[in-house]
Amino acid sequence: MQIGFGVDLGGTTVKIAVFNETEEMLSKWEIPTVTENNGAQILPDIADSVLEYCKENRITKDEVIGLGIGVPGAVDRTGVVASCDNLGWGRTDVVQVLRDLTGFPVKAGNDANMAALGEAWKGSGCDNMVFITLGTGVGGGIVVDGKPLHGTTGGAGEIGHMVLNRNETKLCNCGKYGCVEQYCSATGIVRMATDYLTESTEASSLRAVEKITAKAVFDAAAAGDVVAQTVLEQVYAYMAEFIANICIVLNPEQVVIGGGVSKAGEPLLAGIRKYFDQYVYHASRDVEFKLATLGNDAGVYGAFKLILE
Amino acid sequence: MQIGFGVDLGGTTVKIAVFNETEEMLSKWEIPTVTENNGAQILPDIADSVLEYCKENRITKDEVIGLGIGVPGAVDRTGVVASCDNLGWGRTDVVQVLRDLTGFPVKAGNDANMAALGEAWKGSGCDNMVFITLGTGVGGGIVVDGKPLHGTTGGAGEIGHMVLNRNETKLCNCGKYGCVEQYCSATGIVRMATDYLTESTEASSLRAVEKITAKAVFDAAAAGDVVAQTVLEQVYAYMAEFIANICIVLNPEQVVIGGGVSKAGEPLLAGIRKYFDQYVYHASRDVEFKLATLGNDAGVYGAFKLILE
Repeated sequence: MQIGFGVDLGGTTVKIAVFNETEEMLSKWEIPTVTENNGAQILPDIADSVLEYCKENRITKDEVIGLGIGVPGAVDRTGVVASCDNLGWGRTDVVQVLRDLTGFPVKAGNDANMAALGEAWKGSGCDNMVFITLGTGVGGGIVVDGKPLHGTTGGAGEIGHMVLNRNETKLCNCGKYGCVEQYCSATGIVRMATDYLTESTEASSLRAVEKITAKAVFDAAAAGDVVAQTVLEQVYAYMAEFIANICIVLNPEQVVIGGGVSKAGEPLLAGIRKYFDQYVYHASRDVEFKLATLGNDAGVYGAFKLILE
Repeated sequence: MQIGFGVDLGGTTVKIAVFNETEEMLSKWEIPTVTENNGAQILPDIADSVLEYCKENRITKDEVIGLGIGVPGAVDRTGVVASCDNLGWGRTDVVQVLRDLTGFPVKAGNDANMAALGEAWKGSGCDNMVFITLGTGVGGGIVVDGKPLHGTTGGAGEIGHMVLNRNETKLCNCGKYGCVEQYCSATGIVRMATDYLTESTEASSLRAVEKITAKAVFDAAAAGDVVAQTVLEQVYAYMAEFIANICIVLNPEQVVIGGGVSKAGEPLLAGIRKYFDQYVYHASRDVEFKLATLGNDAGVYGAFKLILE
């Protein structure tokens, strides 16, 4: 039997999945991401874990097609990460280190690009799509003709830091002003709601909420709260604007939205759609909006798919 | 001898070039674009012209690798243009019609994408680049790993209609508000200068110019005119913003700028660069800016390159 590994390396856990030659997931598990000592143990831990799986299941090296891994940073064309703050890494040759430790063929890519590839392959996506994760931050991955678009230095799809409001006076975490993330992430939605409540005296059920979350804003809006609805209209317009600009550049077939904020579901897509047509160029007006379906598994699916290419 | 044709179909003329198997341009000429009768004569005229070249040069059909053509509109994956206002065309199967008329293998793409491919191949570009034409309008073409990015319906790279200023009150030709073209095209530069002169009473050499052109604004700025310099700073900031957003999405190696406005040369690149870093995400900060070098020939080079793929 031929098998392959898909690995999704995150800041707190590493997700590992095993697939067989008919592309079925056989097993998946997690190990902690040990970031101490500049993350020196992360790749050895992954190697140990997959080698142990092979040993327990009496799988020889010849039976392993390879290991694909998604990393939370820019991965260049040779599989090198220049640096990754979340993991404590400086320059790390992910592909070579894992190849040396396991003896398997290894490929590496950015985690958001891997999640995009996973959704394109086994989720709700298709071969020409933009995957957008609206979570604590905003990430993105692009798939063109079934392949992930890495970019020259592995930095393609960092759409959370497109400029959306050049007049913003508050800094984004990245050091710029007016990035997508400042309005369209869960954090951004909370900030916009909090600012609105501070600046106005309108009655709102949100005033009674001890700690406002993006979910609280969506729930309040669904229950008829006018302030929450007003804030979400602003958010939807911002989302529509940056997604329209991406679609004008790429002319994709689908936009697939995942991440925690996407749990708001169809009302989120309808909200974006409401403003999308006024921002998009006619050539890309027919793009289809969908919700992601693989959840946290998208990354391991995409990482495994990478080694099939 | 094997030869191939590269054709650049424009609204007033059709440029046709012949290349040999070592990719040298042997000959080029132009024929008028006859838009009467909904452009019914355009493709037959092109076919006649290339067949006549073959006859005069005693080239048999077997010696023709193929014909590539760039069309001023979105071309889908099968070579069909849904409509093209400039040419008077409704739905036109460019590839099939030209194949039937000539007997050659035919491929078609969007003209801006073909120009991008030409610059990537024989001009100042490289295999991962964004080509931007700043002319009467603003167009763009994207090359990824040496291949043109067409998009799902042939509409990729229509960057002249990205949203740059959502608060704009004047309509763009496309029916939207605040498009890149309204600020960064030659027409946009003239509009911004004219608006500035109307709204202020500052002295400016431009007030003595009968008909302000983009060139006049660049010339006045170079000669020290403060109003012209102020207008150009606004233009550079707008250019930097939309180019940064494209780079954040694609992470290209180069941005190559062509079109009439690019005749302003190095000061234009320096002006854009001045604002670029404040808008771009760090992953794409190292992109190289270059001026296009093929001029009006970029399209025929790219169209011929398309048939080599």
